[in-house]
Amino acid sequence: MKQKKIGILGGGQLARMLCLKAHEFNVEVHILSSSPDDPAAQVTPHWHQGDLNSIKDLKAFLKSVDVITFESEFINTELLKKVTSTKPILPAPQLVNQLQNRFSQKELLVQFKIPTSPYKKLKKEENLTDLFNIFPNGFVLKQTRFGYDGYGTFIIKTLSDAKKFQTIFSQSPHQFIAEKFIPFKRELAKIYVINAKGDFVKLPLCESLQKNAKCFSVHGPIEHSQEKNIDKKIKKMLLSLKYVGVFAVEFFESGGKLIVNEVAPRVHNSGHYSLDALNIDQFTYHLRAILNLNLPQPTLHNRGFAMVNLIGSCSQAPQWQSQFQSHLHWYGKKENRPGRKMGHLNFCSSSPKNALNMIYKDLKLFKL
Amino acid sequence: MKQKKIGILGGGQLARMLCLKAHEFNVEVHILSSSPDDPAAQVTPHWHQGDLNSIKDLKAFLKSVDVITFESEFINTELLKKVTSTKPILPAPQLVNQLQNRFSQKELLVQFKIPTSPYKKLKKEENLTDLFNIFPNGFVLKQTRFGYDGYGTFIIKTLSDAKKFQTIFSQSPHQFIAEKFIPFKRELAKIYVINAKGDFVKLPLCESLQKNAKCFSVHGPIEHSQEKNIDKKIKKMLLSLKYVGVFAVEFFESGGKLIVNEVAPRVHNSGHYSLDALNIDQFTYHLRAILNLNLPQPTLHNRGFAMVNLIGSCSQAPQWQSQFQSHLHWYGKKENRPGRKMGHLNFCSSSPKNALNMIYKDLKLFKL
Repeated sequence: MKQKKIGILGGGQLARMLCLKAHEFNVEVHILSSSPDDPAAQVTPHWHQGDLNSIKDLKAFLKSVDVITFESEFINTELLKKVTSTKPILPAPQLVNQLQNRFSQKELLVQFKIPTSPYKKLKKEENLTDLFNIFPNGFVLKQTRFGYDGYGTFIIKTLSDAKKFQTIFSQSPHQFIAEKFIPFKRELAKIYVINAKGDFVKLPLCESLQKNAKCFSVHGPIEHSQEKNIDKKIKKMLLSLKYVGVFAVEFFESGGKLIVNEVAPRVHNSGHYSLDALNIDQFTYHLRAILNLNLPQPTLHNRGFAMVNLIGSCSQAPQWQSQFQSHLHWYGKKENRPGRKMGHLNFCSSSPKNALNMIYKDLKLFKL
Repeated sequence: MKQKKIGILGGGQLARMLCLKAHEFNVEVHILSSSPDDPAAQVTPHWHQGDLNSIKDLKAFLKSVDVITFESEFINTELLKKVTSTKPILPAPQLVNQLQNRFSQKELLVQFKIPTSPYKKLKKEENLTDLFNIFPNGFVLKQTRFGYDGYGTFIIKTLSDAKKFQTIFSQSPHQFIAEKFIPFKRELAKIYVINAKGDFVKLPLCESLQKNAKCFSVHGPIEHSQEKNIDKKIKKMLLSLKYVGVFAVEFFESGGKLIVNEVAPRVHNSGHYSLDALNIDQFTYHLRAILNLNLPQPTLHNRGFAMVNLIGSCSQAPQWQSQFQSHLHWYGKKENRPGRKMGHLNFCSSSPKNALNMIYKDLKLFKL
């Protein structure tokens, strides 16, 4: 049986891992990205040089493949709608468009009764101090588009914070929403997968630890009394939207409740543990969903897992010689810049805590 | 830190899996093989078309890489010695030469007091029936070179067998040895790894089940009272030989003892389970050994694992739609021929038996 060829827009580490997993079960994947040094460009004979914002490049790329997916939700959905009339793009551009904007994303969550923090769309003339009337305990300013890893996000807890950020807010070319500040006990994350036939799979809930507003490590599995309830609502939403692919959800745990912080219509950093902790990883699930293949049930190899990001700095390259025990995934980025995600480590153990301890021990062996 | 570039001679499934694991931790691997349809040629931008028996092609290939390895022990070691004066080939050609010949392999095992079945080098004028004087319970005729998966192996248990195979033996262009027939309880296998610094690692012992004289499935871990003793002897031999890389050993269990059947100086089918059952797999170990990087200790994800080969037939392609639970590795071979290894399935579970049951259940979903 001849499988469809998949085209991936973008050449970063997410595209690279999609590509490696496609090789594993032998699905032909093509990559469109700008430089041969891009992480995904280095691992396939089917790399196409091009600009994701060029109609000409997109059209040429589409000729080589049967179905398209992407690694970042900040794709130019308007442009894609113009060129993908004959080839499906999954998840669908109109959904991605809705989800890449934090305001319409919030509206969608509310429509499906999925718990999320109260929010308000802001006008440019908004006086930030006035927002304390609605959010007396503070709020979070978020760019509606192109915010990630803490970029475009400002926490406003006092009137003086509000005054400090007023100019940034007023002069920014971006639109913003304000979200009620949620004092949370911890941050959790979960990967869902759905295909066009409606097969639905959920990966284990896990806890994520942040550093400098970026995901630093993930461990699990975590159990939560509200999980089933949330799963049901998310399944209902994804089915109703005819969503296809991996769908990543980040939660706050606050007052014993799960509150959705953000969602992403793609494979996600919080799911990288699955490469070594499960029978099937998030990348294989995404590819299988895109191809409308059945989705096997996820099975954990052990009772605990942990993942830690290897974050770059300008100082040193990784110490390959180190006697680390975890499984190294290194993305092949040519420049080791501060704050850049250069790779990650995965480890399985008899409990989430044991796995986390092990992975932090290993992390010390990497002088990044 | 810039890692050395590795060149792999051959483009089959073993080269493909080495290549995929090299991508994972970002070591640049180049492949030399004859066709762009070869399994390994499909998964890298660094594929070189060429003939492993052409001095010209080998010389051109060597220019792109720093160190060479291979996927089959039946490489032309004489030719390689002529061209690899400047670039190391690992494991070393003179060792491969010694191991690819069953007679000198046996001599080596005996030299290091590693238990193996009694044997005799045969002359072409040998009368097979006379061999019952030495091996009254029968013997196995084995080609000294180029035998694999039962090819070039004949079991002689009766005088009539001996008469039947006399002509094949006498007329064959190959040299043969006779090995005492060992009535065994089961067949076991184990992967060892060693680097130039002498770091030595052993993967779990496992049981292999054969079908038509070919490895069909593998499960483990298995414990055996004689394991430590054998490990010690094999370590001593590998250190003494200055061997580098993965070293695969197949055992008979007979009368409570472990007897070495065959060894192979390369990654091996009996180690494919490691891709999903361990923190580090045999392919990553081989690459790390070749690069003289430290070798992490292997850690099992769970208390049981199983692997089953997906053997081709001319009838049907695999049923991708099937609801299998195990992890599929598919090699991308263009022709599905009877007896051909097309891919394999891996699964982890709470015991070797559970894993094996699961994998056979999944196998039924593949109509090969």
